[in-house]
Amino acid sequence: MILTLTLNAALDVTYRVDRLRPRGSNRVRSTAERAGGKGINVARVLHALGRETVVTGFAGGAAGETLRRDLAAARLPERLLPIAGETRRTVAVVDESAGDTTILLEPGPAVPTEDWARLLDHVDRLLTQASAAVFSGSLPPGAPEDAYGRLVRLAHAHRVPAVVDADGAALRAALAAGPDLVKPNADELAAATGLADPVAAAGALVDAGAGAVVASLGPDGLIAVTPQGSWWAMPPEQLAGNPTGAGDAAVAALTLGLVDATPWPERLAEAVALSAAAVAAPLAGDFDPDVHRRLRALVDVQPLHSQRSS
Amino acid sequence: MILTLTLNAALDVTYRVDRLRPRGSNRVRSTAERAGGKGINVARVLHALGRETVVTGFAGGAAGETLRRDLAAARLPERLLPIAGETRRTVAVVDESAGDTTILLEPGPAVPTEDWARLLDHVDRLLTQASAAVFSGSLPPGAPEDAYGRLVRLAHAHRVPAVVDADGAALRAALAAGPDLVKPNADELAAATGLADPVAAAGALVDAGAGAVVASLGPDGLIAVTPQGSWWAMPPEQLAGNPTGAGDAAVAALTLGLVDATPWPERLAEAVALSAAAVAAPLAGDFDPDVHRRLRALVDVQPLHSQRSS
Repeated sequence: MILTLTLNAALDVTYRVDRLRPRGSNRVRSTAERAGGKGINVARVLHALGRETVVTGFAGGAAGETLRRDLAAARLPERLLPIAGETRRTVAVVDESAGDTTILLEPGPAVPTEDWARLLDHVDRLLTQASAAVFSGSLPPGAPEDAYGRLVRLAHAHRVPAVVDADGAALRAALAAGPDLVKPNADELAAATGLADPVAAAGALVDAGAGAVVASLGPDGLIAVTPQGSWWAMPPEQLAGNPTGAGDAAVAALTLGLVDATPWPERLAEAVALSAAAVAAPLAGDFDPDVHRRLRALVDVQPLHSQRSS
Repeated sequence: MILTLTLNAALDVTYRVDRLRPRGSNRVRSTAERAGGKGINVARVLHALGRETVVTGFAGGAAGETLRRDLAAARLPERLLPIAGETRRTVAVVDESAGDTTILLEPGPAVPTEDWARLLDHVDRLLTQASAAVFSGSLPPGAPEDAYGRLVRLAHAHRVPAVVDADGAALRAALAAGPDLVKPNADELAAATGLADPVAAAGALVDAGAGAVVASLGPDGLIAVTPQGSWWAMPPEQLAGNPTGAGDAAVAALTLGLVDATPWPERLAEAVALSAAAVAAPLAGDFDPDVHRRLRALVDVQPLHSQRSS
């Protein structure tokens, strides 16, 4: 199975209102709750593709219980670690008249040192059955800055390949541990390296220890810098929709490529097609299977002729 | 004990943000959760005054569990009836820079006929130990319009006096059952009767069946129309603060007056002092004991010399 870890998982709540009146009292027309967080989105995509996956991370309090129940309803196996704190919520207030959304992000519980130690033991046990591990998203308050570095080393001690989707200090601190793949987006890549050119920046992350770097460039597709070569994969068309979760769909495809040892151009085509299919689906973690099928053969993958290519 | 029933109880959530940016992503600095609803506020005041009280109503789902735990932490005895639906939340987003608040009100679960029947049985059992019953707040979707009328009849079948704090159709439908006291505010009184003069309107509610009517007029205090006479009770000074829960504090005082058979002028003085002390406390359901003590002897209670007085 593929283990996905979301250290800062959330219960994503959506409120629909006729029109949001700031400073007023607003009647919510409908509410929806869904387990959220980047690793959970990756697991949803893997599960929809028929692959075995296990969700882990922390869950606590009433929101944690609701999150677990949502995963059970989606038949997503989870081994979340119970904590005393309350899992954070994110509230998206959708203004039906204006067609826009206001987001409120709870801070989430701090992770005490004991919980962090328990999590490492817990992941250690789960890794005995894993074919790959995906470590995704921001770190909760209290987690050590090199959390992903330690987790990558733990995975490698089990000979399990590790994928890291993080940014800033958490990404930089992971590189020395040699993650098999990191997947920043264009902004995260520039922020982590100080380099404006994405190919040069991806190369810098490889130099710093990453086994391979795939950067998501939004509508411009993906670039990959790997030991086997460098490529640019472009979607055949632009789809309107919800970009949240598109990067997670790419991570799911790239992790499967790693597990199945698919040639890079094929992996990247699949990642672009799944990303676009995720944009076409309204909820993060879902993808449109028709769009996925239709685009898969149409993605254009070109070698990058920089000094790093081939 | 005094039984307080809140059919539409809520978990009141407060989010503090530096500045609310509509259409943006807002980091919540702190979150607080508290059991809310008019009957629960009444019970908090009774409890702080050292009187025995039991909270009832419906509670379900994760929010219902958190609501129960908050009541337990406040040592407020509760006999909430478990339901399959999820207790509603209200979210108050406090903008720390602007000093204003945006409120989001979840609709809450509809009450199926079976749950309504179970509640009547449940209240029937609780009334065997009650010295008074307080029925407060709006009706949840699915509750019968004459819910409070049926509950008043149930209380009277146990020879328990019943206080109703409701408005609109729920208030009108309760009157024929002869509640011992109703406590509309000025707006609710005008809406229920179509009469602009509060004394005439209160008289109309007595004519329609109420044993006594006390109307809260905000900073202008209270008026009472009762079989023993009519009075106007005025606070000695105006206090700045949070008016939410002030009416509930008045209901707590008036219910104690009913149970203890205190003379009306004393009851009304206590209701005005507790209301003002509730305005001086930041959270609905709390009151400032120093303000309460200081104002109690200073409230001015005057007979109303209308045709209804004495």
